[in-house]
Amino acid sequence: MACLFCQIVEGTQPADIVYTDEDVIGFRDINPQAPQHVLFIPRRHVSTINDFGSEDAALIGRLTLAAQDYARQQGFDEEGYRVVMNCNHLAGQTVYHVHLHLLAGRPLHWPPG
Amino acid sequence: MACLFCQIVEGTQPADIVYTDEDVIGFRDINPQAPQHVLFIPRRHVSTINDFGSEDAALIGRLTLAAQDYARQQGFDEEGYRVVMNCNHLAGQTVYHVHLHLLAGRPLHWPPG
Repeated sequence: MACLFCQIVEGTQPADIVYTDEDVIGFRDINPQAPQHVLFIPRRHVSTINDFGSEDAALIGRLTLAAQDYARQQGFDEEGYRVVMNCNHLAGQTVYHVHLHLLAGRPLHWPPG
Repeated sequence: MACLFCQIVEGTQPADIVYTDEDVIGFRDINPQAPQHVLFIPRRHVSTINDFGSEDAALIGRLTLAAQDYARQQGFDEEGYRVVMNCNHLAGQTVYHVHLHLLAGRPLHWPPG
């Protein structure tokens, strides 16, 4: 079965895309948990954080830099935001294509889930 | 006033260090929110995610790869874990030296704070 997020990358599945660059796309979470809730994913299919190799360090970092860029563009970078990645079932990972959640627009509480 | 986390890097402030490499150190959170709660920080002082430049992509990624490596070494990589970074006050950032929280060892709920 095709990966839902790969289909979004390919354009065959609709998504509210708010960010794109060479390696990363960002789109709104369909079940938002904050006024701003965007997912940043690598265009390349990677199932979980565990599947990244040391050669992927820059790609992983670019997910966070994409979130930073979006936060600045939207003007909430100084107020603040949280980025979260879930790996496997105990963390609640539901789609097995790595995604970084960006949440902002409300106070974010502690613990983080 | 000196940065608390820079003092941990320098060894002048005690911490329960569980991971080190050339660029990153990891130590237990003094106020743990899960059975496993470790902070991974760059040895270099960077105040917030907003202060990273595009040249830092690999360094940011290495924070996550350090968490992945620790998870594998501790044997909870398949069960799962969550990584979180807070930027500025609305996200609850308290120490202004970038740190990636790794949480594991219990189900992690949604929303993430």
